[in-house]
Amino acid sequence: MTDRLAPVLDRIDCDMDAALDRLLALLRIPSISTDPAYKAECDRAADWLVADLAAMGVNAEKRATDGHPMVVGHLRGRGPHLLFYGHYDVQPVDPLNLWHRDPFDPAIEDTPAGRVIRGRGAADDKGQLMTFVEACRAWIAVHGSLPVNITFLLEGEEESGSPSLVPFLRDNAAELTADLALICDTGMFDPQTPAITTMLRGLLGEEVTIHGPSKDLHSGMFGGAAMNPARVLARILADLHDDQGRVTVPGFYDGVPELSPELRAQWEGLDFDHAAFLGGVGLSEPAGEAGRSALEMIWSRPTCEINGMWSGYTGAGFKTVLPAQASAKVSFRLVGDQDPLAIRESFRAFVQERLPADCRAEFAPHGASRASVMATDHPAFEAARQALSDEWPRAAAFIGSGGSIPIAGYFKGMLGMESMLIGFGRDDDQIHSPNEKYDLESFHGGIRSWARILDAVSKDG
Amino acid sequence: MTDRLAPVLDRIDCDMDAALDRLLALLRIPSISTDPAYKAECDRAADWLVADLAAMGVNAEKRATDGHPMVVGHLRGRGPHLLFYGHYDVQPVDPLNLWHRDPFDPAIEDTPAGRVIRGRGAADDKGQLMTFVEACRAWIAVHGSLPVNITFLLEGEEESGSPSLVPFLRDNAAELTADLALICDTGMFDPQTPAITTMLRGLLGEEVTIHGPSKDLHSGMFGGAAMNPARVLARILADLHDDQGRVTVPGFYDGVPELSPELRAQWEGLDFDHAAFLGGVGLSEPAGEAGRSALEMIWSRPTCEINGMWSGYTGAGFKTVLPAQASAKVSFRLVGDQDPLAIRESFRAFVQERLPADCRAEFAPHGASRASVMATDHPAFEAARQALSDEWPRAAAFIGSGGSIPIAGYFKGMLGMESMLIGFGRDDDQIHSPNEKYDLESFHGGIRSWARILDAVSKDG
Repeated sequence: MTDRLAPVLDRIDCDMDAALDRLLALLRIPSISTDPAYKAECDRAADWLVADLAAMGVNAEKRATDGHPMVVGHLRGRGPHLLFYGHYDVQPVDPLNLWHRDPFDPAIEDTPAGRVIRGRGAADDKGQLMTFVEACRAWIAVHGSLPVNITFLLEGEEESGSPSLVPFLRDNAAELTADLALICDTGMFDPQTPAITTMLRGLLGEEVTIHGPSKDLHSGMFGGAAMNPARVLARILADLHDDQGRVTVPGFYDGVPELSPELRAQWEGLDFDHAAFLGGVGLSEPAGEAGRSALEMIWSRPTCEINGMWSGYTGAGFKTVLPAQASAKVSFRLVGDQDPLAIRESFRAFVQERLPADCRAEFAPHGASRASVMATDHPAFEAARQALSDEWPRAAAFIGSGGSIPIAGYFKGMLGMESMLIGFGRDDDQIHSPNEKYDLESFHGGIRSWARILDAVSKDG
Repeated sequence: MTDRLAPVLDRIDCDMDAALDRLLALLRIPSISTDPAYKAECDRAADWLVADLAAMGVNAEKRATDGHPMVVGHLRGRGPHLLFYGHYDVQPVDPLNLWHRDPFDPAIEDTPAGRVIRGRGAADDKGQLMTFVEACRAWIAVHGSLPVNITFLLEGEEESGSPSLVPFLRDNAAELTADLALICDTGMFDPQTPAITTMLRGLLGEEVTIHGPSKDLHSGMFGGAAMNPARVLARILADLHDDQGRVTVPGFYDGVPELSPELRAQWEGLDFDHAAFLGGVGLSEPAGEAGRSALEMIWSRPTCEINGMWSGYTGAGFKTVLPAQASAKVSFRLVGDQDPLAIRESFRAFVQERLPADCRAEFAPHGASRASVMATDHPAFEAARQALSDEWPRAAAFIGSGGSIPIAGYFKGMLGMESMLIGFGRDDDQIHSPNEKYDLESFHGGIRSWARILDAVSKDG
């Protein structure tokens, strides 16, 4: 049966230039979902994908939601029915001055570590989702059809909390339910070691604004006598961690499991290079809970982070203003059975308890998803692990991930469908940061990996 | 001798419409000194003032500095030599969405509390400086000359720390030294009670940036393991005050005097309405040091305020970034003999001591001026107090001020010249805030007050 795979891999190798041109075209569309100013661009990215899928023979269409549209496509083949999920929206690009090129004028760049595709969305997630699309294109070009039944579901709100996803899954449950979901939004363990991500942290986002005086005041006229909400907010944010790096919100650690001895041994066997991981971003010491390894901190421990804060005058020079309000965006990464809604309530109470006279707090929610643990006993996991191991220098690993991909939880909870998370990103891809990139090796090897996985899981099915 | 004053006051009353037109023309020039984008506008404001003074017969000119220009003018008369100081630059206008009109399209508005001049700079300081200019214009129109010798010094960098002022005073000391300086940048005690401000707080401004990772990181990939500089900054800012509202920077209270029993009794006699002062801006409880009155907090106690802070993603929606840096603008109001340079060093050490591994702090200074106490035994103070008491419903008071006007300290230290601070602002003028205004009563009564003061001090001289 390997003869059916070899020509697909050859076709992929020959078609790389055209595949790159297609990816660059998609990267040129600034589909920033969190900023309403880019609504039309999100729409344009969805149209581009519909056209690209349709050109391959997929029955694809753009589906309206209350937010950005979904792209849904179906292609009948033989064998098992798989749903493929990716997202076409991207993160904002600020601070723009730290980019060395226009984030939406992508290009192939030569770097000391190899050739990379530079631009916002190159890795997260346009480059990744196109690895799967290109693998399908090559299968169809060689064999006229796929060895599986495929449903594509490409979302445009992943970077802004996916507000339309749950209603869309609910309203289209029958159409979208498959035997297994494939999600391409994760990374390799290292450039030689492919990975299937089997543990994902959940995410709770909260925005809090502390209101004090009814307007900005002159700090000379009122300073000393009037409560400064920036001071109140700083104290609340400072209180969120104790001196051991533990989060102090009451009940926060309810439902947080310790690693099993087996998983701890497996992770220790990965020889994770803590120094290189932190050193690559200018750091040397793990900053989380005392007594935990960096790998535990990012894969299996919950966190609380300040993602943004602002108050008063932030421009050039100085302004002696006593600000009327101060705001912060705070997120919590969740593991095990932590309940995001209970933590939201506890966090809000934590803030309220710390408000002095004349201050009030206003809250805005930004998503709440539980952690996920995948069903690694599903036979497709072993088939995919073998397929990945065939493509890359080292054998594939089952790993955890610090990031949150709530979609896996929704697929399981709403559609009863297991998910398999496979992706080809690297730790230094600078996703969510300036100068995001995706290695050409990731893109090329990713396409080839999916071709192998389609072959492998169709033999199982 | 009162017959020489009466026609000047009449002339002022008749000329009010034209005086308002002149002020509105000056207010239309967006001379924001702290923002380099408005450099040409600062220049234009200086040109406008030179032309206006020249039209009155003043020998006026624009003098270049390394920053925005000075306007210097001389007009010979009889009697003592006074230097008048005001500033033509204004504060930034953000947040612009809280203004109910374009800040640089000023207008006369009817309000329940009377007619006001609305626009950036109406009170601070264009409206105030024009009260003096208009009083001189009226004297010259009626009598052909002034009863004093006048030197005008109008600065364009007061709102941005006056970087060019000290060199300019040093280079032009002989030309600028007079018998007494008049400074019009302060307020009345209340709308019925004029005031001469005899105690001014000093000001120390510091900007601190905490650097952590070498770039913005994804909070999923690195959250928990990488030090978040926003968390470090929040903890440092929270540490600046203890639970009693006292500033914790070591040595901060060195040189802070207690009020004399006499001054304490005089201030208690002013019947300051603490509830109205705070209630007017939506507050109810003095937020400073426990056991101090609000009047002490703003006139005679030192403070530490956060004037601005920012880190990470601050736009709409949510971005799960772990920021590379976090910044704050912090200012200290100083009293008595507090040494701003010693406090700067102590503050910087305070920050450095609180930095965890992998973080570093960067500092930028924003001005450092000592507190001032005026020479109220100079005979002009009593003459001016009487003149002010003649104009307004209640007798004039010697008061303190929470704000900082470092110029008085420079005049004393560099030119050996005492200063008399008289102004007509009100607590609700919203200087440095959206919707700044200056009451028509302040403007009109201010012009009349200066006419009376010129008369009174020239009889002394």
